[in-house]
Amino acid sequence: MEPILRFQRSDLMDFVIRYMTKLGVSQEDAKTVGRVLICADIRGVESHGMQRLGSYYGSRISKGWLDPKTPFKIITESPSTALIDGGNGLGQVVSYKAMRMAINKAKTAGISAITVKNSNHYGIAGFYALMALKEGMIGLSLTNSQPLVAPTFGKTAVLGTNPIALAAPSGKRHPYLLDMATSAVSYGKIQIYDKKHEHIPIGWGIDEEGQVTNEPSKIKPGGHGALLPLGGMEVTAGYKGFGLALLVEVLCSMLSGGNFLTNVGGPGRPEPTGVSHFFMAINIEAFRPLVDFKDSMDSMIDLLKNSPIATGRDEILIAGEKEFEYAKYNEKHGVPLIKPIVDDLRKDGEKVGVPFDCPVVRED
Amino acid sequence: MEPILRFQRSDLMDFVIRYMTKLGVSQEDAKTVGRVLICADIRGVESHGMQRLGSYYGSRISKGWLDPKTPFKIITESPSTALIDGGNGLGQVVSYKAMRMAINKAKTAGISAITVKNSNHYGIAGFYALMALKEGMIGLSLTNSQPLVAPTFGKTAVLGTNPIALAAPSGKRHPYLLDMATSAVSYGKIQIYDKKHEHIPIGWGIDEEGQVTNEPSKIKPGGHGALLPLGGMEVTAGYKGFGLALLVEVLCSMLSGGNFLTNVGGPGRPEPTGVSHFFMAINIEAFRPLVDFKDSMDSMIDLLKNSPIATGRDEILIAGEKEFEYAKYNEKHGVPLIKPIVDDLRKDGEKVGVPFDCPVVRED
Repeated sequence: MEPILRFQRSDLMDFVIRYMTKLGVSQEDAKTVGRVLICADIRGVESHGMQRLGSYYGSRISKGWLDPKTPFKIITESPSTALIDGGNGLGQVVSYKAMRMAINKAKTAGISAITVKNSNHYGIAGFYALMALKEGMIGLSLTNSQPLVAPTFGKTAVLGTNPIALAAPSGKRHPYLLDMATSAVSYGKIQIYDKKHEHIPIGWGIDEEGQVTNEPSKIKPGGHGALLPLGGMEVTAGYKGFGLALLVEVLCSMLSGGNFLTNVGGPGRPEPTGVSHFFMAINIEAFRPLVDFKDSMDSMIDLLKNSPIATGRDEILIAGEKEFEYAKYNEKHGVPLIKPIVDDLRKDGEKVGVPFDCPVVRED
Repeated sequence: MEPILRFQRSDLMDFVIRYMTKLGVSQEDAKTVGRVLICADIRGVESHGMQRLGSYYGSRISKGWLDPKTPFKIITESPSTALIDGGNGLGQVVSYKAMRMAINKAKTAGISAITVKNSNHYGIAGFYALMALKEGMIGLSLTNSQPLVAPTFGKTAVLGTNPIALAAPSGKRHPYLLDMATSAVSYGKIQIYDKKHEHIPIGWGIDEEGQVTNEPSKIKPGGHGALLPLGGMEVTAGYKGFGLALLVEVLCSMLSGGNFLTNVGGPGRPEPTGVSHFFMAINIEAFRPLVDFKDSMDSMIDLLKNSPIATGRDEILIAGEKEFEYAKYNEKHGVPLIKPIVDDLRKDGEKVGVPFDCPVVRED
């Protein structure tokens, strides 16, 4: 096990701001990037956290592949809708502004939808869905992404992991937050099995012939093989995960006129990635009193938590519950980063002349 | 194989109208029910078609358990939202009217959402999503349903199969229509394996201890065991299917204040089922020209259809494609019903004094 170093949120935020402003990002936009990245680490989604600061964002700006000014342009707008061009800027910046717009529109319109094209990777989908909670709204956040997943009966990576995030407020209970890739698992999970030389479960991925495999080394999207959609093979309804990945494309790239499927780029190539997003806010008060909605949510969660448990299991977990508990702990004890990520942050900082000098507040 | 009898759509419609009006349903509402039922059989979803006329709808009306007048009541309304009480009437009738309202609102508002409580089973979710296509819109249709599915780490049926249907128009290609239960499979599929004394694949369901099983007889939701959510067990991400089932509850029952989870009834019990629905229409023209959207859809579908095929497979199928092809064939050759369903329709008709006298136009 790698040692876990813990940092104060404000120290990490300072570093992100110094790093990003050095690259030409405004103070305010750098803070938005920091918020999204640190939110991922605090919630235990380290794959989407600080470790991506250099590799996904900083390096692209340094090379001139991503516009640090994020020239946000509204193409069409109505009291409840908008289409935005992200100007090949920071996905987090355009997405934060888009979701704020969606929330403001929903305050008067009851419901709103905003679609974004020509953006970049926006971090964890759940961040933007969660923004709606504070306003007593339901938030939806979708994005397409670089191809890693095969369609049912295909054998190459054509679909992104195209996540779906929906957040809904509750009363005494943790809010509901679904934040899921429409693939069975992430590629990172398969790489970990590969490093450990262990077999993967059937249903995670296919080899270069499109046959299901338990050999993680046979799954290298872009080279050979691919991840499978949620549901796995056809017999276990993988075509539903495939269909959900397309639902995300319909609302992101089709509605915005952005890049789709294999035309969406990854962080390592010079051309714009052309990522598309979709945001929706639903003002609960337009339907029924928020306090009643929250009571209903608590009752629904109570019913689930009190349902009979499978032999050998401890409890039924609601979407987001584990992450909210983890976040509570980390808010108290510091943002956890494994040592290799901290080492990378040091290197990222050195490259642009911004030393990573955040003090460790605890080591686990 | 059971023989397949084919009928003219108009003959079946006449029978549904005579049957339903005899039970006190208006001519117009009876036609709506007929449209939804026949749409299912034409598209090859026979489980949700004519076979349910008596068992799900007629018998409940006869017993006084479902109000044939469907007293539709708007509780709150705005230019883009509405909350409707279905008055324990016919799910198809209130849903058809609700989706029409959603489409009309989206014409001016760009996007609209309508939630319905105190309704009943509404047939195939896709029917209402498809209504939006004719208006150049994206349609979304969700419903909760009687408990058949266990939450991850649970061992009893707490969740409905809670389907998600999204339709989007295309140009030369068939439209995209995702119409999927959020369970791995339907209960009907497991019952067929049980009848044939065959094992089911791992990932479809669990026994009374909450352990995955390949014995279909061990899965009798309500008695013992349950279906699994899309994704199957935890290791293949069944918690995502569980999360999607709750996404449907959030937008249907939480937003409407309707029944949820185990409080949703099945067709065989006297108390109101209290089913909740959610409908959304997105006016594509509010974002970009419809003709451009349709071009993008064709390009996306072309890209998928032309992707490399897995060894041993024939083609990549887009959500809804098979059903659109099937419907084309059936529109020409007659609505297919297997003989046992026709026998049931005869009995249903006899019970209320409306003979089923539709002539068979072809037998396969």
